[in-house]
Amino acid sequence: MSNPTAAMLVIGDEILSGRTQDTNTHHLAGELTKQGINLKEVRVISDDAVSIVAAVRKLSSIYMHVFTSGGIGPTHDDITADCIAEAFGSHIEIRDDARAILQTHYDAQKLPLNDARLRMARIPDKATLIDNPISKAPGFTIENVHVMAGVPSIFQAMLASVLPSLTGGQPLLSETYRVERGEGDIAAPLSALASAFPALSIGCYPFQQNGLYGANIVIRGSDAGILKEAMTRLRTEIPR
Amino acid sequence: MSNPTAAMLVIGDEILSGRTQDTNTHHLAGELTKQGINLKEVRVISDDAVSIVAAVRKLSSIYMHVFTSGGIGPTHDDITADCIAEAFGSHIEIRDDARAILQTHYDAQKLPLNDARLRMARIPDKATLIDNPISKAPGFTIENVHVMAGVPSIFQAMLASVLPSLTGGQPLLSETYRVERGEGDIAAPLSALASAFPALSIGCYPFQQNGLYGANIVIRGSDAGILKEAMTRLRTEIPR
Repeated sequence: MSNPTAAMLVIGDEILSGRTQDTNTHHLAGELTKQGINLKEVRVISDDAVSIVAAVRKLSSIYMHVFTSGGIGPTHDDITADCIAEAFGSHIEIRDDARAILQTHYDAQKLPLNDARLRMARIPDKATLIDNPISKAPGFTIENVHVMAGVPSIFQAMLASVLPSLTGGQPLLSETYRVERGEGDIAAPLSALASAFPALSIGCYPFQQNGLYGANIVIRGSDAGILKEAMTRLRTEIPR
Repeated sequence: MSNPTAAMLVIGDEILSGRTQDTNTHHLAGELTKQGINLKEVRVISDDAVSIVAAVRKLSSIYMHVFTSGGIGPTHDDITADCIAEAFGSHIEIRDDARAILQTHYDAQKLPLNDARLRMARIPDKATLIDNPISKAPGFTIENVHVMAGVPSIFQAMLASVLPSLTGGQPLLSETYRVERGEGDIAAPLSALASAFPALSIGCYPFQQNGLYGANIVIRGSDAGILKEAMTRLRTEIPR
């Protein structure tokens, strides 16, 4: 059986303007790979309602899981929750369970639960809350979409809350073999290796370091035995 | 007149598996913003022909410019050039101008221009070559798509070759105002500011540092006068 598939939707003008480097995708990719869920596509879009609704509908119809980051804070540009509700035709308003979490949190800090902060309790009707141990305002899961914060520490904490509930696949194993030769010299044997092991994915990633050219050959697959066999043949055909 | 629009297409299994963090998008975003070209969307997809062809067709039909990174090296998993040709129904084969560049380069290094390296001279018929001062194998532009390497130093060098030929728009100016208060406290005045200055984009990006909560308020726009006016009002309404 093939592994579950997933997509990531990064929402935020700050990524597209170059102000902020997105690091949530890289974190998600690593975590999903460990769990045997194949991240197949990532999209980064702006804080624009039409774009968000369209992307959520599209990605959720193609992939088994969709993870979003960004746009669930208290300010006027945080429109993700309402857009997700619209994408699924769900009613959305301030929900008691989310409000209670915020009330406890802000009471403890002696801060007012004002209108802006209450926006973070706007959760679609049928959604399940995602725990946020860092700053409390919850994310949520609706259908196959997991809606999380953009701040990396909170995104990571929310993802850790969500991941155990997902059915994983066979973890993707990988082996890396570093050679200090140009890709052009090793392309032919690599191509033959890829043909001989159709169940494996064989990638070649060139690097330059201190004037030195080389490549990391990465073989990925979920069967440890086949992977080992391919690595043995690789070492023979492309000796270091 | 509104600014030109652009999309980025990152091609590579290594990004989706979490092996490699994509940094080309962040670099591109910063460069385009300086030039007044609005990066509107980013997609990351795997080294899969069907996905590449579909994404190139889609993005090139929506945005004025599309930039791609990855998949133009000499190995079997480098299929980008052929997929781009297919997307535009263009013939592709080893082209004399690209071959001449490679021949000179490898002759100088006393390395053979073998079949694998010659793959890097496969360029669609109507494409224009993009200069690669680092490792010589060229990128190319076909219609509104600029096809570049995935290795960051080469991507950046190719982008520097392409950018001067593009018509920019009014550079997007931005001002950042840092406040050490929670987003929930400043959301209401920010929302009012956003309504008062519809020509500007006002974003609020929370941070946590050493137990301190705060936010960077970023105002973006292309009219320096309006931006200054908004900043003055921001300082008055949300004093530090």
